[in-house]
Amino acid sequence: MTQLRKALRPSTKALPEYTRGHNRSLVLQTLYRDGRRSRADIARETGLTRVTVSALVAELIAEGLLVELGQREETRPGKPATLLDLDRSAFVIVGLDLSEHSVFTGALLDLDGAISTRVEVELAGSTGDEALAKVVDLAEQLVAAATAPVLGIGVGSPGVVDLGGVVLSAPNLGWNGLPLQALLAERFGVPVVVANDANAAILAEHSFGGAASDAMLVKIGHGVGAGLLLGGTPLFGSRFAAGEIGHVVVGTDGGAVCACGKRGCLETWLSIPNLHARLDRPENADARERDVVLREAGERLGIALAPVVGALDLGEVILSGPTDLLDGALASATVETLRNRTMAEFHGSVTLRMTALGPDIVLRGAAVMVLSSRLGVS
Amino acid sequence: MTQLRKALRPSTKALPEYTRGHNRSLVLQTLYRDGRRSRADIARETGLTRVTVSALVAELIAEGLLVELGQREETRPGKPATLLDLDRSAFVIVGLDLSEHSVFTGALLDLDGAISTRVEVELAGSTGDEALAKVVDLAEQLVAAATAPVLGIGVGSPGVVDLGGVVLSAPNLGWNGLPLQALLAERFGVPVVVANDANAAILAEHSFGGAASDAMLVKIGHGVGAGLLLGGTPLFGSRFAAGEIGHVVVGTDGGAVCACGKRGCLETWLSIPNLHARLDRPENADARERDVVLREAGERLGIALAPVVGALDLGEVILSGPTDLLDGALASATVETLRNRTMAEFHGSVTLRMTALGPDIVLRGAAVMVLSSRLGVS
Repeated sequence: MTQLRKALRPSTKALPEYTRGHNRSLVLQTLYRDGRRSRADIARETGLTRVTVSALVAELIAEGLLVELGQREETRPGKPATLLDLDRSAFVIVGLDLSEHSVFTGALLDLDGAISTRVEVELAGSTGDEALAKVVDLAEQLVAAATAPVLGIGVGSPGVVDLGGVVLSAPNLGWNGLPLQALLAERFGVPVVVANDANAAILAEHSFGGAASDAMLVKIGHGVGAGLLLGGTPLFGSRFAAGEIGHVVVGTDGGAVCACGKRGCLETWLSIPNLHARLDRPENADARERDVVLREAGERLGIALAPVVGALDLGEVILSGPTDLLDGALASATVETLRNRTMAEFHGSVTLRMTALGPDIVLRGAAVMVLSSRLGVS
Repeated sequence: MTQLRKALRPSTKALPEYTRGHNRSLVLQTLYRDGRRSRADIARETGLTRVTVSALVAELIAEGLLVELGQREETRPGKPATLLDLDRSAFVIVGLDLSEHSVFTGALLDLDGAISTRVEVELAGSTGDEALAKVVDLAEQLVAAATAPVLGIGVGSPGVVDLGGVVLSAPNLGWNGLPLQALLAERFGVPVVVANDANAAILAEHSFGGAASDAMLVKIGHGVGAGLLLGGTPLFGSRFAAGEIGHVVVGTDGGAVCACGKRGCLETWLSIPNLHARLDRPENADARERDVVLREAGERLGIALAPVVGALDLGEVILSGPTDLLDGALASATVETLRNRTMAEFHGSVTLRMTALGPDIVLRGAAVMVLSSRLGVS
């Protein structure tokens, strides 16, 4: 056993490596979440040496990312420590939400994800290059309005987007293989991150909305899509199409014919246009009938999600979309159905709630993408 | 923009960090996958400096993990390089498979996951402490049979197992909160890793069976469970119950009453005892009726998995269990159903196959768990 024990003994010997980027992010992350720290505080919280922290802080101050706030009022004797924070006004972020059917929305956000300027561009049925021109127009207006250097542009796009920001397929916009990230980066000369809108949304929910580390956000609008966070990491899937649940068939009892040609896809039950069409029928005019329609839609969502909750052991499902339709009979029916169709012992406590971030969720997620890719914070 | 560019400029300055464990694993991993490498080969393939590699190799030789094989026959002039390999006979691994209903199986495996000695212990209805005693008995026989130091004991257990190897719930064995990993580690004085059987199986499939990085293994036996690999990493879930799909209700048209009290759970369609019960009915005696039963079970598996394939964008589903029942009408019906119920554009190419690892899959997965936790290789 001696040989074994020796082989498996942990070592404390360190070898130099390219860990500077990681350490930089540790310092920035510490201040990002909760600013007003001294160098000694940062060293204690990150586990880095004070020498390392001092060197990194000096660099980050020179780069304009950190500022010294002055000295802490000390209760103990000795030299008071100088407090540091991220210079939250040093940069702005441009966020774009292309996920709505009739309008592209953009905003300037600060490093905390708070929105200042907001701009909208009517889509008016544009597709292809015309739709792309509207994205550029929107970004142009925001970059022009920026009063600080732009840290980056984050974009939440509908459809399937690969890790290089190429929109592989966004049928409503007529985009197939559009290298949106590269085009915007070339046009504006700043770093750009493009991701699927629901993937952006789950990042916002994780950073600003308190989502659990194993959570799914279902975004219900013109289509139905989802963003998944597993162990705190977003899931992209084998063809970047993770979360594409809108055209999964729900149940074994038929359903309406979908635009995709199949029958009973989740979108036929749950998309906002389909929900409105059903609610607008004269026979569904009164409150009770309205509730039946919403409950049925919620049940279908529960039926579709039960195998996903079981397979992934999700702790939390979050809904994003029109509160007047989703928050009530629909959401209650979804969570009841989820619990009735999974293993009570382990999945009975799965929770379901509306996002608290409202319609800005994709814009804020786009900002998180920029913060994460440029500064390593989120 | 100058300030921005400066802030975001990559740096090559390195700070010392505790990366030794990582570098050790890099060296071991390089040799594990494809041995017979010189120090220079390893440096080139890992990106580590030759000084770092030489120091790590010296340590690993002293620890008995690496051996020098002699010199390579060089075609070029100069001093021939000395080839290295993992000493694949330096250690053995004990693997235990507790997932079968009537028998516990154990084996000694080498560092390549090949099985030498194999031992079985009849369960004979044992549960609770009696079943635990049979696990200890099995491990004892194998440790006694080992002709080299035991690197560790890997265990694939049915039920829900947390990351500390506590079996939270294994109803068939009457285990609730059993700290199996700690008990075996204390008893045998070697490192022990306990995980769910299907999670062990997907690791085996990834290491030895060529599973994609985004894959799901469905293990069909007395119960039905799954192991998931996402981006090459096993998924555990918010309550360690990822893959527990056996009690997800399938379809919206009823089904048989399950032992859990619900109606139409996946296990009622697909577990081996339930399949046999249906196949043994006199009216299902001929080949055509048999196929109908198997196709129906396969369709139900497809219905249950379609939302999972859509949400996760899985590239591959792998089945593990009795080939005579699964490989044929059942598997074909599953993949057809999967394709018919998801988005053709992205999920139409999902593949489904039987594991090629046969009934040893959990034993080999248990070995992977030990290799991964002790040496950082897989």
